[in-house]
Amino acid sequence: MTSTDSAQNASSAAPAKAPAKDPWDLPDVSGLVVGVLGGTGPQGKGLAYRLAKAGQKVIIGSRAADRALAAAEELGHGVEGADNAETARRSDIVIVAVPWEGHGKTLESLREELAGKLVVDCVNPLGFDKKGAYALLPDSRVAAAFHHLSAVLLQDPEIDEIDTDVMVLGEERADVEIVQALAGRIPGMRGVFAGRLRNAHQVESLVANLISVNRRYKAHAGLRVTDV
Amino acid sequence: MTSTDSAQNASSAAPAKAPAKDPWDLPDVSGLVVGVLGGTGPQGKGLAYRLAKAGQKVIIGSRAADRALAAAEELGHGVEGADNAETARRSDIVIVAVPWEGHGKTLESLREELAGKLVVDCVNPLGFDKKGAYALLPDSRVAAAFHHLSAVLLQDPEIDEIDTDVMVLGEERADVEIVQALAGRIPGMRGVFAGRLRNAHQVESLVANLISVNRRYKAHAGLRVTDV
Repeated sequence: MTSTDSAQNASSAAPAKAPAKDPWDLPDVSGLVVGVLGGTGPQGKGLAYRLAKAGQKVIIGSRAADRALAAAEELGHGVEGADNAETARRSDIVIVAVPWEGHGKTLESLREELAGKLVVDCVNPLGFDKKGAYALLPDSRVAAAFHHLSAVLLQDPEIDEIDTDVMVLGEERADVEIVQALAGRIPGMRGVFAGRLRNAHQVESLVANLISVNRRYKAHAGLRVTDV
Repeated sequence: MTSTDSAQNASSAAPAKAPAKDPWDLPDVSGLVVGVLGGTGPQGKGLAYRLAKAGQKVIIGSRAADRALAAAEELGHGVEGADNAETARRSDIVIVAVPWEGHGKTLESLREELAGKLVVDCVNPLGFDKKGAYALLPDSRVAAAFHHLSAVLLQDPEIDEIDTDVMVLGEERADVEIVQALAGRIPGMRGVFAGRLRNAHQVESLVANLISVNRRYKAHAGLRVTDV
């Protein structure tokens, strides 16, 4: 049994350092263009809708540009549509909301367009082979977030607030904070730092538990991190 | 990307069944004896303290009976201490809060005493070998719960409410509901059903994320399941 606070206790015994930066002092991301790959699926579309409604410039990406255009028109709020490659090129932040099946392939085919971009993966942004984990996008800045959102709630225009936190994982604090700030643009939602990418796997897998919760309680469950 | 509500949508399209049982209609567990194996460690002790303070009869178990007795005396609230075997024998519900290292061995050495008991594991109650998962306690009723609680908060007598939900996993609804009701005895806490035992692994692993949260935010983070 591992206490969640044991590590903290250890670090508080360490020598005093400069005062820590306020973890809620997040950057202004309102001017950034957000692309959503797989933005014609229910969760990608829901996320695009929420971000655009909050005033963010959003481009929906799809393998077929015409499907992306149709979804964008349906959403309104200035959302544009394009194929995945153009979406990646034109965006500052690229949210990967493609189905799990084609996920690795889609990312690898867009490696060039995604170079230098901040890529936010809703599943796990690592590949796994016999040697362990490897980066699917070595030339991109990668974070993991938006893992288990209810597409039903995201897409429902009657619902004003999404009552959940989003766990944000990544290696570079500046990038993580951009993603946290982006999550915070959606009313009710907070982006909470929850570790490095190697800890993204269990956050992704937790979707199975939330599906069990939803079945038992006839709910659209989210997760709120307490005491932060 | 997997939507958490897809499964629910599928089931709501299925033919209508008898009205579901109210998932919050939980049994009265106030008369049950709760044993805490590893009850001299910080989390076990904290959990024993909270349950006893809520009026539950609690026995602390340890490999060494004298250490258990000392911890019990320190806690008060009618807590008793005994060696692990006696604790298991005398309890209706046995919470396993032993360190991860000796976990499997401890359980297997108590297989006889734990037969027929409701065993609640704070780590994963399954063993894993080349063939996959197997039950460590085939003769017990097994649930998984109390995975990531802050020992600091549990043990602090100044804190009246523990602001977190506890995910409860198990195969038998009646057993899961007993554990949910037990968690609900602690003010602020709810026991929420979160799937079968095969989904306990990621709940256990999430401790790594909460440690990251605690470091960044200098917090004792918990998790609240929203919309339930």
